[in-house]
Parts: sequence; structure tokens; C-alpha cells
Amino acid sequence: MKTDIDYMKLAINEAKKAQRRDEVPVGAIIVRGEEIVSKAYNTREYGKNALYHAEIKAIDKACKRLGGWRLVGCTMYVTLEPCPMCAGAIVNSRIERVVYGAPDHKAGAFGTMINLCDYPLYKPQITSGILAEECASLLTSFFKQKR
Amino acid sequence: MKTDIDYMKLAINEAKKAQRRDEVPVGAIIVRGEEIVSKAYNTREYGKNALYHAEIKAIDKACKRLGGWRLVGCTMYVTLEPCPMCAGAIVNSRIERVVYGAPDHKAGAFGTMINLCDYPLYKPQITSGILAEECASLLTSFFKQKR
Repeated sequence: MKTDIDYMKLAINEAKKAQRRDEVPVGAIIVRGEEIVSKAYNTREYGKNALYHAEIKAIDKACKRLGGWRLVGCTMYVTLEPCPMCAGAIVNSRIERVVYGAPDHKAGAFGTMINLCDYPLYKPQITSGILAEECASLLTSFFKQKR
Repeated sequence: MKTDIDYMKLAINEAKKAQRRDEVPVGAIIVRGEEIVSKAYNTREYGKNALYHAEIKAIDKACKRLGGWRLVGCTMYVTLEPCPMCAGAIVNSRIERVVYGAPDHKAGAFGTMINLCDYPLYKPQITSGILAEECASLLTSFFKQKR
């Protein structure tokens, strides 16, 4: 039986793919039961598209794979707390549980800047802080190297 | 010189395309200067995808057409106040101005349920209430017919 840490390691692998392509290193995977439904990483610059955050790409792939807009019974593992766009997409797609690594102090929408779970929308279960230091250090070293 | 009302009529045309396909009737267009950059309507059910709101589809097309993730100088006209996912995508894509028709009392994220402009993110200029009754009546007759 795999743990949250095992799955977060897979999300970190995705974030490292973004890093190798000189993109802000954020990765996400969607799991249902023991099945990996989708994996994705941020490609906003290379993909030239504001929607290409890891979470949106993972949700897009999961809807296509599962053949419907409701991702019932799915858990998303993501290295960084989702922004309002991604948190809203998670709510809209009925993802059951979100496990994120590092908090996003600028745009985090599941508790840090704002909490979409405070509103009368669908509320996924949220777990934070899984491998948070590893997830955050990918980001800090990326931005340090950029300066 | 076209007015907000002229452009909202085009967004309403898009919403009517959704209605004819038995989708929740919401339409959006993106304009830059006098140019219509993209048009889209909600196809969440037919498209089997939680991301296929009119606004997300219009932003996706506009990024592809303009070749970048920043939709600088663009205005979005949308018949219904954007939900958190779509409002977050508007913020992320740097759309300059949003003009919406009807407020969304359940999920509106530019002032009704929540206001993403209250947070230290990029803030588009918001204009609401343009052809609001016509936009809202499309929705109320759709849901009435559904019951």
C-alpha cells in the first residue's frame, strides 16, 4: 500500500521535469485507488499558455482518461499549494482530496492567501506539508538561479 | 467604434450555441483593440471535461492565437460572472479588463461570492451588469426547462 509520501515523490519527479525545461518547478499527479490516472508539470513558458499549470494539465488528462468531468474518488498530489485557478478547477472537477507539499505565500488558495474551502462550493479534503521542504527547495533554487 | 453592449451581444451569441447543445448557456469572447481574438462557449457535458467553461476555452484559444501566456491589452466579455477557476485564469493570463453580464450568486469570484481582486494578485478592471437581464434569462429558462 503506497503512502502520501510515495505519491508526493512522483509529483516531485514531475516538478523536476519542469525544472529541466527551465520552467517553474511544480508537478502534480492524480491517483484513483492505486492507479496513477495522470501526471503533469508546469509548462507555462514553453507552452505559451496561462492555463498550463501542472494541476490544470493533470485535470485535463484525467478527464480525458476517465471520460467525464467528475473526478470522483480521485486524489491530487501537487508539490505547491494550488493558485485560485487550479484550486477552482479542483473544486469544479470534484477531486476528493488534495495533498500539497509547500505552501504558496503569494497565491495559495487552499489556506494560505485565501481558502476556497471557506465558501459554499464543493470542498475537497486538504492535506498539506507532505515533503514540504523538498518541494519548496526546488522552487527556491530555481528562483535563486534565475536572479 | 463598438461598445460594451455590442461585444456582450457576441458573447450572448456564444451562450446560445451552448444552449442549443443542451449545455449551461454561458458564452465568452476576448477582444484586443477592435479585433475579436477568440470566442467560446461552455461544453462541460459534451466535452466531458471540468475545464471546458467558456472563459477557459476562450483564454486557451487566445493564448494559442497570440502566441504567449500574457493576454496584455485584452478584454473578456462573458455572460456570467466567472467562477474561481475562471477568475483565477483571467488573473493568471493578465487579461486587462473583464465585462460580465449576470452575477453568479453561487460561485461568482469577481465580487458576488468572493472577490479575487481583494487579494494581492494581478487585478483586472471589472465592469458588471452589461445586458445582465438577457444573460440571466438564458440561464433561468435553461434550468426551468431542465426541471
